[in-house]
Amino acid sequence: MNPTSTLDRIRIVLVETSHPGNIGAAARAMKTMGLLRLYLVNPKALPDGHSEAMASGGYDVLANATTCVSLDDALAGTTLAIAVTARRRDLSHPSMDVREGAMQAVVDARKGDVALVFGTEMSGLANDDVLKCQRIAHIPANPDYSSLNLGASVQVMCYELRMAAGLNELPPAAEFPLAKFEEVERLYQHMEKMLTEIRFLNPQHPKRLMTRIRRIFSRVRLEREEVQILRGVLKMISRAVRHEAAATKSDSPPDSQEP
Amino acid sequence: MNPTSTLDRIRIVLVETSHPGNIGAAARAMKTMGLLRLYLVNPKALPDGHSEAMASGGYDVLANATTCVSLDDALAGTTLAIAVTARRRDLSHPSMDVREGAMQAVVDARKGDVALVFGTEMSGLANDDVLKCQRIAHIPANPDYSSLNLGASVQVMCYELRMAAGLNELPPAAEFPLAKFEEVERLYQHMEKMLTEIRFLNPQHPKRLMTRIRRIFSRVRLEREEVQILRGVLKMISRAVRHEAAATKSDSPPDSQEP
Repeated sequence: MNPTSTLDRIRIVLVETSHPGNIGAAARAMKTMGLLRLYLVNPKALPDGHSEAMASGGYDVLANATTCVSLDDALAGTTLAIAVTARRRDLSHPSMDVREGAMQAVVDARKGDVALVFGTEMSGLANDDVLKCQRIAHIPANPDYSSLNLGASVQVMCYELRMAAGLNELPPAAEFPLAKFEEVERLYQHMEKMLTEIRFLNPQHPKRLMTRIRRIFSRVRLEREEVQILRGVLKMISRAVRHEAAATKSDSPPDSQEP
Repeated sequence: MNPTSTLDRIRIVLVETSHPGNIGAAARAMKTMGLLRLYLVNPKALPDGHSEAMASGGYDVLANATTCVSLDDALAGTTLAIAVTARRRDLSHPSMDVREGAMQAVVDARKGDVALVFGTEMSGLANDDVLKCQRIAHIPANPDYSSLNLGASVQVMCYELRMAAGLNELPPAAEFPLAKFEEVERLYQHMEKMLTEIRFLNPQHPKRLMTRIRRIFSRVRLEREEVQILRGVLKMISRAVRHEAAATKSDSPPDSQEP
């Protein structure tokens, strides 16, 4: 099963959400991470224009959402349900953070449907709802203020699901081949020559100057084209220095030269 | 340096944010993850009542935000700035995902101030702004729709910063000591006795019943109190069975017994 179809077997279940805007924000968060199956259990208000505005490009997730009258309906067919919750429970399931929860969800989604269950904005999930899940996952948070916005919680959970599914490829970068050893060595030789020419480096007393230069550029890991640019700069410095020297010798400032 | 004070050296910089509500949402996202230093570069509108509503418990982060006229001002004093961006750049810095970016930010925050820089809602960061940063971090996203809400992006980034700082402790769970080996073995013996008594298990042909039972309960990892509850249930089954047997022997159904 490829990683994308693994995410297709994961449901996001929102229980008794109060604000339609938050349902939209959750839909958008899901879509950005490639999750498409939204279940709404007894929403206080059905999705409306405000939901659509907040859903933005996740409109299709919102439009295809399944509305249920009970959590049982939303969980029917699943083999694993994970409650996402902030509150500490007295008699609770084994707890883990959302990173571990996402890993378990992705592993289980290869075998059956998995649900991630979110409670209301104000009070989270009721204990009876948590008892219908087999696991609890927490979003680690500031103990002084741990109340994430519902859309933000869904975003973090779905981000971890995408990471756990191995879908963390970076946008393709343009190809810039790195310079080879000998190209960089020739650059250092060129620099040394220029530094001698401008009398910043005294070959009789070189001290550690070339060592410091090497230290800078070894951190950089130059690309081939960058070596060419830098050698072009070095060449023009030499040319300008020689030009200046010639002008000084002929006693006329270079600016006033006429063709 | 403890993990909390590491987070104190990390700035969240929002460049030219259009909607005051998004500034508030970012402040709330930061507060939930324990980040407190918000910088606003040329916001299109200054924080207002809508920002405060969206900030919710992150109001102090919003109230203490530093407003700057340029990105240079917001980055003054930092030794590392990481651009958080979705778009692919033609001539770009080395890229990483936000998990790796957060790890680098936390490592560097031990030595100096670090900034995470977010662009506008519509077009992200301008190239000139990216060039003032030393690294780029991407939030992995659905290639078909990668546009996270600004507050949601800040939430994911700050969550990863908290995780990278090692502040992912779970809420303390109530202590439920696990049952010891011998307690669970006595439970199995008790079960076997009950199963024989109700004639579900034939000791002459036990088949694999006790193996199946062990398979269930070894997955559970019972707590001590749970063993006691289950043994209480077993005891009452035996009592009820014996009572039924006695009643049958005396030929009067137990329901109709009078004292």
